[in-house]
Amino acid sequence: MKIIIVGASGTLGKHVTAALKSNHEIITAGSKSGDIQVDINSPESIGKFYEQAGKFDALVSTTGHGHFGPLTAMTYADFMKGINSKLMGQVNLVLMGQHFINPKGSFTLTSGILSEDPIVLGSNLSAVNGALEAFVKAAAIELENGVRINTISPGVVEDSPGYFPYFPGHIPVTMARVAQAYVKSVLGAQTGQVYKVF
Amino acid sequence: MKIIIVGASGTLGKHVTAALKSNHEIITAGSKSGDIQVDINSPESIGKFYEQAGKFDALVSTTGHGHFGPLTAMTYADFMKGINSKLMGQVNLVLMGQHFINPKGSFTLTSGILSEDPIVLGSNLSAVNGALEAFVKAAAIELENGVRINTISPGVVEDSPGYFPYFPGHIPVTMARVAQAYVKSVLGAQTGQVYKVF
Ligand SMILES: NC(=O)c1ccc[n+]([C@@H]2O[C@H](COP(=O)([O-])OP(=O)(O)OC[C@H]3O[C@@H](n4cnc5c(N)ncnc54)[C@H](OP(=O)(O)O)[C@@H]3O)[C@@H](O)[C@H]2O)c1
Ligand SMILES: NC(=O)c1ccc[n+]([C@@H]2O[C@H](COP(=O)([O-])OP(=O)(O)OC[C@H]3O[C@@H](n4cnc5c(N)ncnc54)[C@H](OP(=O)(O)O)[C@@H]3O)[C@@H](O)[C@H]2O)c1
Repeated sequence: MKIIIVGASGTLGKHVTAALKSNHEIITAGSKSGDIQVDINSPESIGKFYEQAGKFDALVSTTGHGHFGPLTAMTYADFMKGINSKLMGQVNLVLMGQHFINPKGSFTLTSGILSEDPIVLGSNLSAVNGALEAFVKAAAIELENGVRINTISPGVVEDSPGYFPYFPGHIPVTMARVAQAYVKSVLGAQTGQVYKVF
Repeated sequence: MKIIIVGASGTLGKHVTAALKSNHEIITAGSKSGDIQVDINSPESIGKFYEQAGKFDALVSTTGHGHFGPLTAMTYADFMKGINSKLMGQVNLVLMGQHFINPKGSFTLTSGILSEDPIVLGSNLSAVNGALEAFVKAAAIELENGVRINTISPGVVEDSPGYFPYFPGHIPVTMARVAQAYVKSVLGAQTGQVYKVF
């Protein structure tokens, strides 16, 4: 299988890449790192990226960021950070990628626990994750040629100790569990699923 | 109670207005209709709107639209329609309105059934509704001075027969049930809730 991993160099992405690389052809991508460069914030960049990558069987996205800060001081511009990056970046990977993916291929996106279990400072990421989770449910009933789509919703991960103070009482999830959720989405047969890893 | 209703002239809004107007001071708003004009797509317009409306006790939003069309032909620009209008319009009413609302006031937004029960052509609205539902859960734990926030998630309503062909097997909900969900949010005491009316 030819698998593109956008965000392959990241905290999550490197474990996902390690879990898939022995049995598959992997194309890694990032804004600075990887086999191909792409800026998910730019539809133009995503278009060029798919032209360069060519036909593929699976697209995994472990990328995108949002604004982290108090609601009481949040502005329109702050909120748009998560919309433009983590939400529209990943949605665009699907909207444009559907025209390049092979029949029976799959898209696997990344949302996160904040859609349903909010933390202080996290309202932008909550909204973004909620949008992604509803989007995969809806896109799954329209994608053609047997193409599937799921999202992985991790809790805070053990390799991100810098985030722990913002997640009081959350039990960090192991990288092995997170990576296996992506494997399940790519190599399994389900669609329209939110795989919770928490 | 001084209650602002943005979208008061609409299919949902006029029933919500009727249900609240006998016992409360109502300020109606719309882009063309109402006591005050506001374009929710424009943060500048929302800022001016709140300056004009002054302090208030409750803000109800029954407005915002999204793109309705096939995923296979959907573009970035199509998807941004729902992001800019129904999502960011309502989020901005909260981000900016939190600086004008009275203590113990409330925000009541409108999402919809498509966040969890998708239909063909509805992926943009699914994403937008999912974002709004996660946002109210997160915003509820940060709003200060006892200010509350909820969203109403209606199914297709009986007064919108034009939508029925796109909702096969859905049982339209009565306007009375929909209106009472808004009354519950405004006059009740809960926060961070998604009131499903379907
Ligand atoms: N870490 C956690 O605890 C956690 C928990 C739940 C969910 N998540 C979610 O998981 C995803 C990945 O998080 P992470 O902690 O692994 O992030 P990370 O370590 O910062 O990695 C981000 C990855 O994305 C790439 N990237 C950054 N900006 C990009 C752009 N504009 N275009 C394309 N690629 C870009 C980076 O490569 P370059 O440097 O080459 O751009 C890198 O490979 C995020 O959506 C995050 O919200 C993380
Ligand atoms: N109808 C349904 O079956 C149904 C079901 C579930 C959810 N919903 C949701 O409920 C909400 C209201 O739907 P509806 O069917 O009642 O819509 P509608 O009949 O089209 O009414 C829209 C209202 O919003 C105002 N408006 C339009 N554009 C605006 C803008 N840019 N800025 C400020 N106000 C604006 C309109 O007033 P002006 O003309 O003066 O601008 C009108 O009062 C939407 O979010 C919709 O997705 C509807």
